Amino acid sequence: MSREEYIRFQFSKELLEEVINLIESGDDAALHVYFNEIHHADIAEVLGELSLDQATYIIKLLDSDTTAEVLMELDDDDREKILENFSAQEIAEEIAELDTDDAADIIAELSLERQRNVISKIEDPEHKADIQELLNYDEDSAGSLMAKELVKVNENWTVTRCVKEMRSQAEFVTRVHSIYVVDDAEKLIGRLSLKDLLVAKAKDEIKSIFIPKVDFVEVSDSIEEVSRLMQKYDLEAIPVVDNEKRLLGRITIDDIVDVIKEEAEKDYQLAAGITQEVEADDSILELVKARLPWLILGLFGGLASVIILQDFEEVMLLPNIKSLFFFTPLVAAMAGNVGVQSSAIIVQGLANDVVKGSLVNRLLKEVGLSLINGFALGTLVIIFGAILDFEFLFSLTVAVSMVCVIIVAALIGTFVPILLHRRGIDPAIATGPFITTSNDIFGIFLFFMIAKLILNF
Amino acid sequence: MSREEYIRFQFSKELLEEVINLIESGDDAALHVYFNEIHHADIAEVLGELSLDQATYIIKLLDSDTTAEVLMELDDDDREKILENFSAQEIAEEIAELDTDDAADIIAELSLERQRNVISKIEDPEHKADIQELLNYDEDSAGSLMAKELVKVNENWTVTRCVKEMRSQAEFVTRVHSIYVVDDAEKLIGRLSLKDLLVAKAKDEIKSIFIPKVDFVEVSDSIEEVSRLMQKYDLEAIPVVDNEKRLLGRITIDDIVDVIKEEAEKDYQLAAGITQEVEADDSILELVKARLPWLILGLFGGLASVIILQDFEEVMLLPNIKSLFFFTPLVAAMAGNVGVQSSAIIVQGLANDVVKGSLVNRLLKEVGLSLINGFALGTLVIIFGAILDFEFLFSLTVAVSMVCVIIVAALIGTFVPILLHRRGIDPAIATGPFITTSNDIFGIFLFFMIAKLILNF
Repeated sequence: MSREEYIRFQFSKELLEEVINLIESGDDAALHVYFNEIHHADIAEVLGELSLDQATYIIKLLDSDTTAEVLMELDDDDREKILENFSAQEIAEEIAELDTDDAADIIAELSLERQRNVISKIEDPEHKADIQELLNYDEDSAGSLMAKELVKVNENWTVTRCVKEMRSQAEFVTRVHSIYVVDDAEKLIGRLSLKDLLVAKAKDEIKSIFIPKVDFVEVSDSIEEVSRLMQKYDLEAIPVVDNEKRLLGRITIDDIVDVIKEEAEKDYQLAAGITQEVEADDSILELVKARLPWLILGLFGGLASVIILQDFEEVMLLPNIKSLFFFTPLVAAMAGNVGVQSSAIIVQGLANDVVKGSLVNRLLKEVGLSLINGFALGTLVIIFGAILDFEFLFSLTVAVSMVCVIIVAALIGTFVPILLHRRGIDPAIATGPFITTSNDIFGIFLFFMIAKLILNF
Repeated sequence: MSREEYIRFQFSKELLEEVINLIESGDDAALHVYFNEIHHADIAEVLGELSLDQATYIIKLLDSDTTAEVLMELDDDDREKILENFSAQEIAEEIAELDTDDAADIIAELSLERQRNVISKIEDPEHKADIQELLNYDEDSAGSLMAKELVKVNENWTVTRCVKEMRSQAEFVTRVHSIYVVDDAEKLIGRLSLKDLLVAKAKDEIKSIFIPKVDFVEVSDSIEEVSRLMQKYDLEAIPVVDNEKRLLGRITIDDIVDVIKEEAEKDYQLAAGITQEVEADDSILELVKARLPWLILGLFGGLASVIILQDFEEVMLLPNIKSLFFFTPLVAAMAGNVGVQSSAIIVQGLANDVVKGSLVNRLLKEVGLSLINGFALGTLVIIFGAILDFEFLFSLTVAVSMVCVIIVAALIGTFVPILLHRRGIDPAIATGPFITTSNDIFGIFLFFMIAKLILNF
């Protein structure tokens, strides 16, 4: 099981049972050995499957620095529950082991009173001040993602002094991403490549070897902007500065990976008619809260279509054309499907910045696309109409309506997200049930309008 | 505009017009200055908006090392077109500037004959051999993502020798992620932290300061597995070894970020009924190819519901209950919405590894959830029925059918993706139109079966 022997951790039921057995038989020594051998992310995975009591039992057995890292890897819910069994003093001790960004994240989840309590018990005054600073930044800003730990050198230092200072700084930095260069006013002026440092002579001044091109963000920049820049320029870390370019901290790519995943999951869930970030293993009540609102929206849409259908009843239930009614679900489903396709492409395009050009061009493109799709599907309807022995005029009515419905559905699916985006609203809410429901209604209405026109002609 | 002055690049129409003006007036000097000041990712963004001729004109103006980096950042389609104007010799020269992984990616896009031609013209024999090695790995394997450039040291070296060797290796490595430690047989045995190296004494042996815990993947491991490990353990780079643990290369997190994004986009598009990875600015024909197949699936589903409705015609079109037909779109839409919600949660849960426990438990949970949602929605139907003055038995029929339809739709939405996943098929194909269409049909059928039972009673 030891990672030193290169054996990869693999969660299994048997493993879980073994751990539970060890807990029940109180074999602390074996548990201690086992859990200090695997990665903290793996420990967190095992704890996530244990009961709260069992998880707390294991947590208290771990070495202090491991405990802190494991806490970071746990689900928010699990962490909250486990921390309830910790005193403010204990939390402060765990947090001392963490980087400032992780420490601030954990403290931010506590109640305000508990926050004050924990902070007052942090021993190292610098760590305390750093964490307090981080807690003040806006939740959606670069500041909320950054850590204070970084390696920085002054442009006036020699290589020898630089290496000496880096040695002492590096003790507090888990991982050296970049070496940032500042001037005497602490302003970020560039970065130093490890390569150049290795090649430089001991007496060279940093000034003469550093790279003045450096990407950075301001502490008030949005997380979205940080994510965009780090992805575009393939950065593993980016320095964060204040509005006078003074170096405040750095953001690493692992935090951005989490942001990218959360963003993608949120969009995916909205497209499927799920609000709030829920997971398959959340409670039934949480799942209901995330799903029911969209279903109620669908219900209202459905009731609207009932009313439309009642309006058309007299005309359409004439004996010779009543089977037109049978096509209602087909037309509604088609409108819904087309709308979801159009909106999904636009929402993704907006996120990736590929929706340029004018709105009119975009809509014209959807019309062209819909004409091709509509024509293909209309032809199929007429062929099936012949096979199923419908009257030609009848099949034609369905086919023509469908082409129109597809065009309108595509236009709505394109127009609404773009409009929302321009007004600063997340266009992803106009995917999924929103677009299917509104397109169902428009589709059915349009279908009967066109049918009435053609068949009464 | 210079990044040295910390001004962030922002694409705009005015900028594009200015560039086009400079091209038309043949002001090569100004273009050269401007494009050598901005980041290669920004250059690629501008080129993506120019015509092929204009883009090629700019490319030929750039410094050779910039050209190579810009080529890497272009869209696959744009790159392919631009490279058509390059001779094999020119491509080989550009590729000499790139890391082996990027070089191999570009060559892999060429025709087989052109590949041979370009490879034969690469001057550096080591670079050539590395690229040829990379081209041989399976497209979905760790090997296809890795680069040969890395910094490795032997456990028997002293710190002094280590720093000296790193100096010469670092020349060929754009960015030092980790220092890997190998034994005399070139087998990966650990890593060296920069921190420890900085603190160590000149005569210390690497053996005595390196960290024996190191994550790694085998060259034949799937990209999915690499992505899972790097995310789980927050790695910025991971070494790749052969089946005897010999160090072959390394994979960096920026490549994995691309994988994560592509994966998320693929799932999103499947859920919206779009196959192939298309973007909003792709051609109409490509968009039709991605969208029409799912619409045809929807058409067949719709035709199936027409046939079901015809079967129920005699019973249901009796004057007093014919308005039940008006509820068909409502019931179908509800079945579709519920199915999409259930399948999306399962697909996401499977991707994030949170769907544990037995299938029966999972299905029971969906039944519980559906009972709550169904009861809430059924109550609303009865309230609206009272407002709209329906007969109570009639409203009750709709409400009861809806509860049943919601349960069945949720079960189908849960069961099908899990089944596909267990058979090794991507469960994401069972979201979107697939699940809405099949649930439409089941929903309508169930609705009329239940209505017949209740109303004929």
